[in-house]
Amino acid sequence: MKRHISKEFRRKFAYSISPYDVLSTFLLPADSCIRSAIMQSTHDNQAGGMRAFFNPRSIAVIGASDDPARIGGRTISNLIRGHFAGPIYPINPSRSTIQGLKAYATLDAVPADVDCAIIALPVDLVLNAARQCANKGVAALVIFSAGFNEAGRDGEKRQQELREIANAGMRIIGPNCLGAFNSRNGAWLSFTTMFQEPNENACIGIVSQSGGSAAHILKLAQKRGLAISSLVTTGNEVDVDFGEALKAMAYDDSVRVIAGYIEGIRNKENLLAGLRAAHAARKPVVLLKVGRTDAGAKAAASHTASMAGEDLVYDTVFNEFGVYRARTTEELLDVVYAASNRPLLGRIERLGVVTISGGMGAQIADAADDCGISLPSPPDDVRARLKTLCPPGSPDNPVDITAQLSTDPGLLTASIRALIGSGQYDAILAFFGVYASVPSLAEQFAKDLEDLHSDHPAVPIVLSIVCDTARAREYMDLGYLVFEEPARAIVALAALNQFASAFVKPLQDKSAPVKSARIEAGHAFDEREAKAILTNIGIFSPSEITCASPDEIATATTQLRYPVALKILSPDITHKTDVGGVVLGLETPDATANAARDMLVNVRRHAPGAHISGFLISEMIGTGPELIVGTRRDPLFGTLVMVGTGGVTAELIKDVTLALAPVDRTEAEGMLRRLRCFELLNGYRATPDADLAAAIDTIVAISRLAAANPDTLETVEINPLRVMPKGQGAYALDAVIETVGTDHDN
Amino acid sequence: MKRHISKEFRRKFAYSISPYDVLSTFLLPADSCIRSAIMQSTHDNQAGGMRAFFNPRSIAVIGASDDPARIGGRTISNLIRGHFAGPIYPINPSRSTIQGLKAYATLDAVPADVDCAIIALPVDLVLNAARQCANKGVAALVIFSAGFNEAGRDGEKRQQELREIANAGMRIIGPNCLGAFNSRNGAWLSFTTMFQEPNENACIGIVSQSGGSAAHILKLAQKRGLAISSLVTTGNEVDVDFGEALKAMAYDDSVRVIAGYIEGIRNKENLLAGLRAAHAARKPVVLLKVGRTDAGAKAAASHTASMAGEDLVYDTVFNEFGVYRARTTEELLDVVYAASNRPLLGRIERLGVVTISGGMGAQIADAADDCGISLPSPPDDVRARLKTLCPPGSPDNPVDITAQLSTDPGLLTASIRALIGSGQYDAILAFFGVYASVPSLAEQFAKDLEDLHSDHPAVPIVLSIVCDTARAREYMDLGYLVFEEPARAIVALAALNQFASAFVKPLQDKSAPVKSARIEAGHAFDEREAKAILTNIGIFSPSEITCASPDEIATATTQLRYPVALKILSPDITHKTDVGGVVLGLETPDATANAARDMLVNVRRHAPGAHISGFLISEMIGTGPELIVGTRRDPLFGTLVMVGTGGVTAELIKDVTLALAPVDRTEAEGMLRRLRCFELLNGYRATPDADLAAAIDTIVAISRLAAANPDTLETVEINPLRVMPKGQGAYALDAVIETVGTDHDN
Repeated sequence: MKRHISKEFRRKFAYSISPYDVLSTFLLPADSCIRSAIMQSTHDNQAGGMRAFFNPRSIAVIGASDDPARIGGRTISNLIRGHFAGPIYPINPSRSTIQGLKAYATLDAVPADVDCAIIALPVDLVLNAARQCANKGVAALVIFSAGFNEAGRDGEKRQQELREIANAGMRIIGPNCLGAFNSRNGAWLSFTTMFQEPNENACIGIVSQSGGSAAHILKLAQKRGLAISSLVTTGNEVDVDFGEALKAMAYDDSVRVIAGYIEGIRNKENLLAGLRAAHAARKPVVLLKVGRTDAGAKAAASHTASMAGEDLVYDTVFNEFGVYRARTTEELLDVVYAASNRPLLGRIERLGVVTISGGMGAQIADAADDCGISLPSPPDDVRARLKTLCPPGSPDNPVDITAQLSTDPGLLTASIRALIGSGQYDAILAFFGVYASVPSLAEQFAKDLEDLHSDHPAVPIVLSIVCDTARAREYMDLGYLVFEEPARAIVALAALNQFASAFVKPLQDKSAPVKSARIEAGHAFDEREAKAILTNIGIFSPSEITCASPDEIATATTQLRYPVALKILSPDITHKTDVGGVVLGLETPDATANAARDMLVNVRRHAPGAHISGFLISEMIGTGPELIVGTRRDPLFGTLVMVGTGGVTAELIKDVTLALAPVDRTEAEGMLRRLRCFELLNGYRATPDADLAAAIDTIVAISRLAAANPDTLETVEINPLRVMPKGQGAYALDAVIETVGTDHDN
Repeated sequence: MKRHISKEFRRKFAYSISPYDVLSTFLLPADSCIRSAIMQSTHDNQAGGMRAFFNPRSIAVIGASDDPARIGGRTISNLIRGHFAGPIYPINPSRSTIQGLKAYATLDAVPADVDCAIIALPVDLVLNAARQCANKGVAALVIFSAGFNEAGRDGEKRQQELREIANAGMRIIGPNCLGAFNSRNGAWLSFTTMFQEPNENACIGIVSQSGGSAAHILKLAQKRGLAISSLVTTGNEVDVDFGEALKAMAYDDSVRVIAGYIEGIRNKENLLAGLRAAHAARKPVVLLKVGRTDAGAKAAASHTASMAGEDLVYDTVFNEFGVYRARTTEELLDVVYAASNRPLLGRIERLGVVTISGGMGAQIADAADDCGISLPSPPDDVRARLKTLCPPGSPDNPVDITAQLSTDPGLLTASIRALIGSGQYDAILAFFGVYASVPSLAEQFAKDLEDLHSDHPAVPIVLSIVCDTARAREYMDLGYLVFEEPARAIVALAALNQFASAFVKPLQDKSAPVKSARIEAGHAFDEREAKAILTNIGIFSPSEITCASPDEIATATTQLRYPVALKILSPDITHKTDVGGVVLGLETPDATANAARDMLVNVRRHAPGAHISGFLISEMIGTGPELIVGTRRDPLFGTLVMVGTGGVTAELIKDVTLALAPVDRTEAEGMLRRLRCFELLNGYRATPDADLAAAIDTIVAISRLAAANPDTLETVEINPLRVMPKGQGAYALDAVIETVGTDHDN
């Protein structure tokens, strides 16, 4: 039986067979550990056919070199140093051996199946080599060479041809990338100089769209002694993209934490599938996404010409999946380190701090407050115990054990034990700075900390100390997190807390069909029609009447409760105020009729081409906080619902939250609570509590309307939504609905 | 002639003699370098009599020990290792020699003058020893011992006695501190274990209120290879406080950059004098002030029981003097390192970036944008040159020279030179990460960078690289700033830019007397009276009329332009809205009279005891943005002027700026521009430009009113100040003036 299964076969069954389905035995190699292979192959199915990158049966290097300083040479030497167990086939027409391995003139000359191939050739030779790989039945191909989409029109043409080769059934990583590796089995498909010895504890996976950023992350990770399990750099993403590589890491049992670098996502579904898989596997994901600022977005776009999408939407997506977004490589590695150190997946909201310096204690308290971590005081009995342990110190939290630690080293763990014993703390941070470097103290610290850890293995304890790497490593090996700068430790603890919160929260399934009113494309709605649609989905507007002409107004509006608002009705006018189409606070029917006559003159002057269907006369609703609630379409992520505080100052400070549509009531409430001006809804300054439930219902209904019409609805905007006191509802005072294929603005 | 000059003498002349006045020769030691001594002694005068701490003629250590592991032993060994040139007198009743030096049983037994003394004794023996120092004529005393203000009532009593001893003419550092040192002359008045060899290039001064925080800063500085010139830890500040130590550093020629750690300032004048001296000497000051958050303030207060004052006010003061406020020790040292590296005192607003990775370029662009540093594109000719140098790269800024650098190391400086040659950049950041560690490349980098530096010594260039300390040191020695994490380099560059901006701006003299209206204490003003005072200083209110009773209103208000606002007048009611004392938008005299009758009933119900002097009827002013302008008294820093955006959302997001009063027009404009909602005044969304000049005049006038009445005026609050369109002024729609000794709220 031929071992190699076609990509179509694997894709076809990827989502239809259960993990332990017998069909998966088709994928088995005949020779190696059956159980592990089942795991790998079923994971492979779930992870979309990436097995041959991470667990290749054989590897050919096209463009192999005898010189390890060259790209095609370092790739061979990495494979040799990594002790890759399968056959390695160097391909080079002019040599019979390369670095001690038998070399072949062409791929075809290899007298066996080739599972995985690497192309390390000048760009002109790449397409030909890729076709040979496809003909040979290669399952996974890595292309290092640059000169594709990033290199003008010729490069784009080359990449298009490469895509066609990939579409025929072979998975491709690259081109223009640093490759990939699995350090645990020696499958180094990379010319990186950052080789690392196999390490059983390696549990960090890295996915990067940039080779340069990946190299930087790798180098700094190694400098800290962090062992990387596997890496994928996706480069130009002709086939395998960021989301697929992320998903593969989520399904790789050796990876416990995933770090990623993103410039711009091309395929939303793959990203979401990757994030969903990581969430399901309870694997913390830490991402550095550039383009936070306009300058960064410009730089990222000029680098990869990827579609960057709106940065705020990435925050929204990351937030839904509990992803920690780092701003720098340093912060990324701080969080990855903390998350990989040990399984710390409980909430960390209450921190106990032990310090040898009140001044450092105050710095730590500031840093904790910045991150939303509290430092509750110990109970009285524990305070008494701490005071007995160190009379000149402070038994508050931060607990100050002072320089007395230098003569009484047992004080460190005695104080930590007192705090843990109170049961009040989710984690402990102990700052003993330079004392960790004092040889006469370090021995007792090490002994005491070893005992402490075996008594309380589940309590996360951070040591904030200044010492050399070897000493820090000793403390880490005892089971402690070690940070020099306490503020960075606290950022990392807050990130762990964020992961823990996300992992207990079930993900919303946003792919299921949603029922709501159906909106057709290409239709233009005026305010009255827009409000009618909203009424249909349970959103109220004030009582209002439409009149075709000013003359009708005086008699038609006698049932309305005055004062009223008068607005022009026209499907061609979105911003009524700009054309003089709104007058508020009219006290009598006659005043309203007169105002309508003036309005007609103004509007005709400002918007001469607009079709005017009449006037809308609405009762004025009492005071109350105002929100903006709307939906919009992100070019990448699709339908979003947006909630913001109303008013012009809120607009300037951009007090807005976004979520992928649809949202349920819990999510909608979360959105409101994330607003900086949420207090306005919550009885701020002795105003009555607002009708939060009504605001939440409105957000849910709007989000469902958008999700039910993803192809036809461009935007919905209720501005303002007046939120009345509790029990009195919320009213859409104005509403705009725009569909795809119409241009409302004039 | 007796060398020791009394503290009174020195204080008396401190500010009255010129630096080169012959009187200063009174202070000369008879033996050493005359010119340097003149500088030191005149500086001593200006720095308030701190000479004997930094340049002592002789040092006695009371409680000296033969064991360098003990506090009184390490102090002796530090002095010996520091090669202190003057006599060292160990005081110990039970030994004849200590660490090879002749010891004395008592201070009195020392057969010479003692210029400086250190007390390293248990707390019970400190007061006696301090008295002996005073009797002996010691000029400067350092007390390490704890057990004073931080240790309950007994401790407070001891500190009070110590203060009396200090008042008699001897300057004291401490108690409860780590001491002080001047590493350049070996005057180690400290038991710190962080001894460092004398270093001619040492130029960093450190002042810290906490010994623990100072030790942490010292240790991390030494780990980075930063040489500390001098240190003062002020501890309980019985005499020498933070501001005085800061001022001494400002006058010390060997100090070029000052780092500080603050928990809470006790003496405003000393702090301001220190900051003024540092500004005058163009010395960058970097401060870590804890208590940014409520939790941090609580921790700081419990540590030192110092009066922490309002944290926001520290920001205000720091901002006026161009102080960089760091949040962590790491950030503090990043900025101190950059500022001490070389004299980089030009503006850094436009950064040129060269990178080997487009991904890192995008990260750098994000970080620069965060810090307000721009990355302008190179001109066309430079772009062409860069494209020729590296065809596959990007000639934009960040300039991407790609991995081609690994085969063409000359590309690094060639690209930097191209950017510098454009004349468009204030500084350059070059990211070449791991390549800096590649031995085959590093040699040419070093050679090229040496040439580059000699051609362009004035251009600040940062290398963002990953390498070991020795290699980094090589690049630093060539004249470059070296940072591993580029985002941290950019924070440091932004700090240098902040210093440069502050140093070109003359300081306002806020101590001169200010003329404005005089306000007496203990007087209660109603709104009409408050507005009358404001009118006196040039601030307009709407046209308005007062009526004693509702019945007068109909006839009295016929000249007013309706609609009007009706408000209750009572010196006992500050918050009129809360008692139903405000009705807006009244259209007719009759409606106004009726509303006044209702109002009387409401107010009498809500505030039964309030004296009601009548009603204020004001014309309503057209729409326009609203500000809050006021003054308040900080318990530490005195009179402050405050400007904020009006409206309830602005209040929730605290869109407010503060400044020490009085401010001039430039400062007032700066305050407005710092508001997040400044755009509202500046023609936001096609509204007319607001009368900025009128708003500025109002802020200046209010600030001068407060500064002229620092002892009597509690607060002024104009809320709102309606800013009309350009040329139409600004109006105080409501105003409250509270004086010291009255309680307006009921």
